[in-house]
Amino acid sequence: MKTINLMEKLAQFSNHWDPHVVADYNGNDVMVVKFQGEFPFHVHPDTDDFFLVLEGEMEMDLEGQSHIVKAGELFIVPKGVTHRPRAENECKVLLIEPIGEPNSGDPKTATLKPHI
Amino acid sequence: MKTINLMEKLAQFSNHWDPHVVADYNGNDVMVVKFQGEFPFHVHPDTDDFFLVLEGEMEMDLEGQSHIVKAGELFIVPKGVTHRPRAENECKVLLIEPIGEPNSGDPKTATLKPHI
Repeated sequence: MKTINLMEKLAQFSNHWDPHVVADYNGNDVMVVKFQGEFPFHVHPDTDDFFLVLEGEMEMDLEGQSHIVKAGELFIVPKGVTHRPRAENECKVLLIEPIGEPNSGDPKTATLKPHI
Repeated sequence: MKTINLMEKLAQFSNHWDPHVVADYNGNDVMVVKFQGEFPFHVHPDTDDFFLVLEGEMEMDLEGQSHIVKAGELFIVPKGVTHRPRAENECKVLLIEPIGEPNSGDPKTATLKPHI
């Protein structure tokens, strides 16, 4: 049990779209991630997707709509909803998904998420 | 589906130790809460307890140890661990617990959490 400083964790890596696990909450990976550019549209059929912007600004594109999400703002994509996070400039995000959930929603592209 | 500004939500109430639900993530209440003073020691036997400090500073007292948690810092109390959040000055926190989990861990004291 320890206090986790999110900016210190974010300072440990530079890759975009590469979530790093910082804690476990009831079988969910609590992750920090840096967004810049455009992630592919994708869907998580079995889980909601939790995004809290820590620094910067992103857009959450959905089918037919788009939402700006700034530092201090939360966006939850319900399960089954196709979405694409996008950020013109680097944006730092707290992300929560069940352990093992592939970023892209597609089990074929699942990668082991590093723990820091 | 919408962007949720946490400080705007926190501006809607002033009571301490009174979590307000701002979103649902996979059957969990995502809440904002203001801490000031000392909550009783308590335990959640069946769930971890997620605290992210948004503004200010708190202490998480455990049996035999105490952890300072500042803005931008996360503390997860594992299920079954007795704990007491405490804050000398007002501290604003993002809290995540399963829907219906009583604040105190004790079902006898469960109250309906307002949604804002």
